[in-house]
Amino acid sequence: MEIDRTVVRQDKPLLAALGGAAIWPPPVWLMRQAGRYLPEYRAIRAGAADFIALCTSPDLAAEVTLQPIRRFGFDAAILFSDILMLPWALGHGLAFREGEGPVLPPLRDAAGLARLDPSRLTGAITPILETVRRARAGLAAEGFDRTALIGFAGAPFTVACYMIEGGGSKDFAATRTLAYADPALFGALIDLLTEATIAYLAAQVAAGAEAVMLFDSWAGVLAPDLFRAHVVAPLRRIVATLKTRFPAVPVIGFPRMAGMMLGVCARDTGVDGLGVDTAADLAVAAALVPARVALQGNLDPLALAVGGPALARGVETVLRAGRGRPFVFNLGHGVVPHTPPEHVAELVRRVRAAG
Amino acid sequence: MEIDRTVVRQDKPLLAALGGAAIWPPPVWLMRQAGRYLPEYRAIRAGAADFIALCTSPDLAAEVTLQPIRRFGFDAAILFSDILMLPWALGHGLAFREGEGPVLPPLRDAAGLARLDPSRLTGAITPILETVRRARAGLAAEGFDRTALIGFAGAPFTVACYMIEGGGSKDFAATRTLAYADPALFGALIDLLTEATIAYLAAQVAAGAEAVMLFDSWAGVLAPDLFRAHVVAPLRRIVATLKTRFPAVPVIGFPRMAGMMLGVCARDTGVDGLGVDTAADLAVAAALVPARVALQGNLDPLALAVGGPALARGVETVLRAGRGRPFVFNLGHGVVPHTPPEHVAELVRRVRAAG
Repeated sequence: MEIDRTVVRQDKPLLAALGGAAIWPPPVWLMRQAGRYLPEYRAIRAGAADFIALCTSPDLAAEVTLQPIRRFGFDAAILFSDILMLPWALGHGLAFREGEGPVLPPLRDAAGLARLDPSRLTGAITPILETVRRARAGLAAEGFDRTALIGFAGAPFTVACYMIEGGGSKDFAATRTLAYADPALFGALIDLLTEATIAYLAAQVAAGAEAVMLFDSWAGVLAPDLFRAHVVAPLRRIVATLKTRFPAVPVIGFPRMAGMMLGVCARDTGVDGLGVDTAADLAVAAALVPARVALQGNLDPLALAVGGPALARGVETVLRAGRGRPFVFNLGHGVVPHTPPEHVAELVRRVRAAG
Repeated sequence: MEIDRTVVRQDKPLLAALGGAAIWPPPVWLMRQAGRYLPEYRAIRAGAADFIALCTSPDLAAEVTLQPIRRFGFDAAILFSDILMLPWALGHGLAFREGEGPVLPPLRDAAGLARLDPSRLTGAITPILETVRRARAGLAAEGFDRTALIGFAGAPFTVACYMIEGGGSKDFAATRTLAYADPALFGALIDLLTEATIAYLAAQVAAGAEAVMLFDSWAGVLAPDLFRAHVVAPLRRIVATLKTRFPAVPVIGFPRMAGMMLGVCARDTGVDGLGVDTAADLAVAAALVPARVALQGNLDPLALAVGGPALARGVETVLRAGRGRPFVFNLGHGVVPHTPPEHVAELVRRVRAAG
């Protein structure tokens, strides 16, 4: 069955908010809502050979995608995967080492760029698309009629960061150095990733994703000129291209730590929604960003982990700032592993009780 | 000789700019202008037992303070020291391990707070104040009549970050967790550090510092409520108290990665100048910050390290945004160790040639 993507499903609160409606109480979901803080996730994870095996096993990945929906009834499920599955699908080496995070061969020259193979993409992402299909079907089968399925990718700059550094970094100095020292190579890498990201997200939508999100976790390390070139411009291109094929599928950008660049992202990219990170003042962001762009955020994940008055006050502050405009309640960054699941339940309860 | 601190020395470009004058070409100095990228620094450093010994040897520390002035003729010299010399002076353990950064005993409870001993401060900072005196005298003796001497401290929040984590961190999660979980303890630590910082900076001014700067390197990790409580409020208190004693001595705040909170810092703290980090759009910052507050920044240190077109274009962009208002040319973060000194010379040449 081909899904009709020309109409907005206003019966799903997330899609309505991203379509411009000031739904109240706002739809709610959390970044990394599927993950290590959930015992049922740890049980599945323990049965997979490694993290990549988990991401490429549609039955397991779809199950993990659905777990937090069953527990908390979120308004969105998000495909369980990792932003580095895209370079993996392009043939770039990838391993996840316990407690160390991702490890990749550092890409710092034209030979490294030439080794990426876009022709591998379609084949390599097959299991991930199957996860999307199963998760979407699972939501329907289990009666989660109001829960939308979000597909996602890393934004080209953040994916490039990991590829160039060979893993995480404090300040991504090698990445920024390459951007200054060899702008042509850096630009070619961003271009290649941008095209691959478009193909990857389009395939997710065709498989059943009802909205897509682009995670640009390290956008905040860039000086403004580089930010415009490697965060804003690729996002604009991704949105424009996806919109020609799927005009009704909303795109959420998340340029983390964009700070005062958030306004540019709202004005110049065409996104339907913008993720707002923990450090941003949501009230200031709401004033910077036109009301046609939904905001999504931004409770501190550590306030959620601590709970008690910090959680109550944090939820209150976010609700106050998000009220009266298209808004999606979320964290400002992902759920941290030591978060007690009952704090998440309390968060959802508080959001849904918003008067 | 007691120095008269009630008049602004308008013959020093840095002080004139911080006093509200739109000097052009702008005064220029660089964060970490004294340091490992200079061979003459490495020679001195090799002769000191360790980094703390260097910071507490007035002859060596004053010499290191003056080295970049002799080489580049900067408009400011900044006391050579470290922001963690304040907790050290309060009796908190501190060691610098090669390639690892600072190591401190983590402070996470009331007992840790109780072990801090403000009565040690005056005695412990004696050698640092002697460095200030010698550096000031050295500038005069060597004919650097237009170069102002800046004293500095870490801002309370950033100093607290290192004390609570026990060193550096990717996201200072333990610090933010403590701020949520035990606001009373956290607030008491910030209060103690605020008072100690005031005493420390006042002593530096009395010893000859002509301006002071507060480095809040990790301000950007805080959610807005915590930012207002632990970045904005302490800075306001420090400025207000220093101004009662030294009304003509300018105070520069540097809430790094403040993003959209920069406007609040400009409006609500009373600072004379604000450091702007690399990620901020200086033109946007200039629109956010009233012209009575000088801006200081914000070339990417990596553009300086790479040199060539990246340096030329970067200097040009910063100059364009800083023009027509009180402005001090600087980097957006410290000079990195692999920076070729000739790039610094080129930077100074380009700034001084600004038409």
